[in-house]
Amino acid sequence: MKKFINNVDDLLIDSLQGFSKAHSDIIQLNEQPLFIQRNTPSADKVALVSGGGSGHEPLHTGFVGKGMLDAACPGQVFTSPTPDQMMAAVEAVKSEAGVLFIVKNYAGDVMNFEIAAEMLDCPCETVLIDDDVSLPKTHSTGRRGVAGTLIVEKIMGAAAEKEMDLNSCKVLGDRVNQMTATMGVALNCCTVPALGKPTFELEEDQMEMGVGIHGERGHDTMDLMSATEIVEIIANAIHADLNPKKGQKALLHINGLGSTPLMELHLIYNLAAQYWEKRGIEICRSLVGNYTTSLDMTGCSITLTLLDEEMIELWDAPVNTANLRWGC
Amino acid sequence: MKKFINNVDDLLIDSLQGFSKAHSDIIQLNEQPLFIQRNTPSADKVALVSGGGSGHEPLHTGFVGKGMLDAACPGQVFTSPTPDQMMAAVEAVKSEAGVLFIVKNYAGDVMNFEIAAEMLDCPCETVLIDDDVSLPKTHSTGRRGVAGTLIVEKIMGAAAEKEMDLNSCKVLGDRVNQMTATMGVALNCCTVPALGKPTFELEEDQMEMGVGIHGERGHDTMDLMSATEIVEIIANAIHADLNPKKGQKALLHINGLGSTPLMELHLIYNLAAQYWEKRGIEICRSLVGNYTTSLDMTGCSITLTLLDEEMIELWDAPVNTANLRWGC
Repeated sequence: MKKFINNVDDLLIDSLQGFSKAHSDIIQLNEQPLFIQRNTPSADKVALVSGGGSGHEPLHTGFVGKGMLDAACPGQVFTSPTPDQMMAAVEAVKSEAGVLFIVKNYAGDVMNFEIAAEMLDCPCETVLIDDDVSLPKTHSTGRRGVAGTLIVEKIMGAAAEKEMDLNSCKVLGDRVNQMTATMGVALNCCTVPALGKPTFELEEDQMEMGVGIHGERGHDTMDLMSATEIVEIIANAIHADLNPKKGQKALLHINGLGSTPLMELHLIYNLAAQYWEKRGIEICRSLVGNYTTSLDMTGCSITLTLLDEEMIELWDAPVNTANLRWGC
Repeated sequence: MKKFINNVDDLLIDSLQGFSKAHSDIIQLNEQPLFIQRNTPSADKVALVSGGGSGHEPLHTGFVGKGMLDAACPGQVFTSPTPDQMMAAVEAVKSEAGVLFIVKNYAGDVMNFEIAAEMLDCPCETVLIDDDVSLPKTHSTGRRGVAGTLIVEKIMGAAAEKEMDLNSCKVLGDRVNQMTATMGVALNCCTVPALGKPTFELEEDQMEMGVGIHGERGHDTMDLMSATEIVEIIANAIHADLNPKKGQKALLHINGLGSTPLMELHLIYNLAAQYWEKRGIEICRSLVGNYTTSLDMTGCSITLTLLDEEMIELWDAPVNTANLRWGC
């Protein structure tokens, strides 16, 4: 295994110390229990708290700051954080307006955020993210939360900043999640530090369609195709799920899973934008880059979010985090 | 070769079309000849024009916009752009205040920017970037320009925005370059699309010290070490070159070369910051992420820039580009 580390056990804390030092103008680190909080909490707004396994950076820690998350709880690589982290994070950032948890739909995350929610002594709602359309809606544990998560975090961050109340935040968060669909593809898998080798192997002429963000296999191992063919498969799945009408405005997010050059992500963006423009969808907002990664996985995902005017205004609102920043 | 492309010949233009569509609020693409220019040129300031081979994204195209570059000329992957691109870019963005070229020190780039400069009918100065301390100062073609380039582009972008005159821009640009030192290391090489395989091979227990950004070998193939040992080697070389005094303020930039997870880059940042803090250097500004890449190379570079108050103010000034944005 080739990685820049000293030892596997200290990777997370060493990395978070570096992250918090490099971005001390925006966030601060609490080490025991582990969470990142923004420097300038607001007393009058719903507090947004998210978290999940590490290895997806910049998600979630890179999105803590004004206009987005109030705190994020990082677990070990691909491992849920624990309820004590969530409760301590809430304690640090909560206000009388209550707390909104934004949780990716994985059994461990869901369970631990539920335990924390039950033990809190303040109003709390949870928005569950399940944007991955590579799994059927009827899948036993439901669909996974993947790259659409940051879109919910951005829009809800802006809504909370405008002092939207907790119940309205819950309703809007669920709606953004429902309007969002994602599917991913990998050309090569990632290496989890504690395992020391790729979690699955692909031949030189193979790709894995429908991957998540934890190095798990997708729904299909396929022959490697052209970028146009790959985009067609993914976009067809998303389009069938969201079923947008002509004239619908949308946000198109191309997310790199770790090792895919920006040149290729922009090429994918170009093809995906053409796909939806041909179908009468207006791509009016865009985001291209490595935002929800899977360590060093070679791959990308395509996310489409159908937008209304309220969502556009909230997406455009100022945000000042380590890894998403505009208008501030 | 596993890449998201349709064919090697169209990769650059397909990608630039996607880039310009995704960021149409900030930049626009000119296809013949090929350059990216900012949407809102200013008539009264020195125009900043850079460029170089593609495959280093977001450098340079991702840094075109208010407070940074006025235009960037992308060549084919790892290949210099041509003088006609530079001349057309200048024509699109020039003002009476003249043009400043920011050029990485590679034979092709230097020659082509020189030809363009000679053919221009407006005042033109060039700042040559040679921040790579992995080569001796006496190297036959001089030192290479690597990740320090964006620091010069950011500071000079802010200086030009403040209407600094051309001669002063040239003097300041040279000074920022002299105050900047970088060294890189690779764990695995990159695959140039036209070649279809890595440009060099490393064993599972090897790393390449002193790499540039074009998939060329570094000065030493070494046994893989701990992150602390790697940082020590690189930081020693930078420290010996810049020879900073105690109390000196500095910008620390950890740059990913393409495939290195953000977790590891933040760990490297933590170690490098500790290295210099122990020596009495005040790390007062930081930048961590993939900014000057080498396609899908696994590796990183460390850059230190010694700062004075003028440089700090210019670094902090508002910037609004696709991939570097604050204060706007």
